[in-house]
Amino acid sequence: MITYQVHPEKGFTDKIGELVFMLEHVRAVTIQEVADLTEEELDYSKPGGNSIGALLSHMASIEYVHQQISFENRDLTEDEVAVWGIALELGQKANETINSSSVDDYLDVLESTRDQTLELLKEKDDEWLYEEREWPNGKKYNQYYLWFHVLEDEINHRGQIRAMVRSYKDKTVRT
Amino acid sequence: MITYQVHPEKGFTDKIGELVFMLEHVRAVTIQEVADLTEEELDYSKPGGNSIGALLSHMASIEYVHQQISFENRDLTEDEVAVWGIALELGQKANETINSSSVDDYLDVLESTRDQTLELLKEKDDEWLYEEREWPNGKKYNQYYLWFHVLEDEINHRGQIRAMVRSYKDKTVRT
Repeated sequence: MITYQVHPEKGFTDKIGELVFMLEHVRAVTIQEVADLTEEELDYSKPGGNSIGALLSHMASIEYVHQQISFENRDLTEDEVAVWGIALELGQKANETINSSSVDDYLDVLESTRDQTLELLKEKDDEWLYEEREWPNGKKYNQYYLWFHVLEDEINHRGQIRAMVRSYKDKTVRT
Repeated sequence: MITYQVHPEKGFTDKIGELVFMLEHVRAVTIQEVADLTEEELDYSKPGGNSIGALLSHMASIEYVHQQISFENRDLTEDEVAVWGIALELGQKANETINSSSVDDYLDVLESTRDQTLELLKEKDDEWLYEEREWPNGKKYNQYYLWFHVLEDEINHRGQIRAMVRSYKDKTVRT
């Protein structure tokens, strides 16, 4: 159920719990957006654009990568790139490779990735959110930002999904 | 400048300051996304879709409406609907009405609306974030959610803008 009162989710420290509320709120809206889509709708893409299925896989891949950066302080291994790389990069290769699945298949991957995130966040406290690191380009970031970015990226692609669902329906009406 | 360390912005209480960081981070990325767009790009729309200019006006209108709901506890007056209604609703009428402006014109409206938001948030404290209200449909929300939704809506449409910029460039390359 989608709720509209930001509050700390139980089982987490105060600010992590609110971040978890936001992550889960965003996810609930994403699920609502795609829950009824057919395989054909999930595979549909416009020239140069990404399919909805590829975008859903991308959301899970972004979350997985951020788990490794955040909790393991490392990039993906070669084995992990073999699993997640195509969804991460999107584009034509993702459209060609990621398809012919039901929406439940995509949502299952999102759910298991999220479960892992929540388990890991349960072990952290609010002070951890402000732990600073530096990217190879010298820019500083903190843990809080990493997880804010995960929800930012999901909303960004959900906006594209929403436009594509509308566009698919228009196409169907016109043909 | 875009920074990547979530922290309370100065001049606000702790949690409001972090919410302000997020709102401002999202805005900075939006500005970066559109800063170099021409009038032609801003006016471009696909069948059934919204132009980038209309989406930028929509972002300002959503923020303005949320100011009234949040700080005044009311919907828009008729006079305000006359100013903001078309941008708020989007669709064909918005594309037909909101155009022929430079990106700076759109950004000016976003900036003045944001300045007003920040002035109003400065007067509030973290406890206020949890103040509960009920929508006419009986669903409860709090102030925190309202402002989280403002950034959620902006990111959602920014994702659409990003796809449109890509689509416009593809179109130009193909023709």
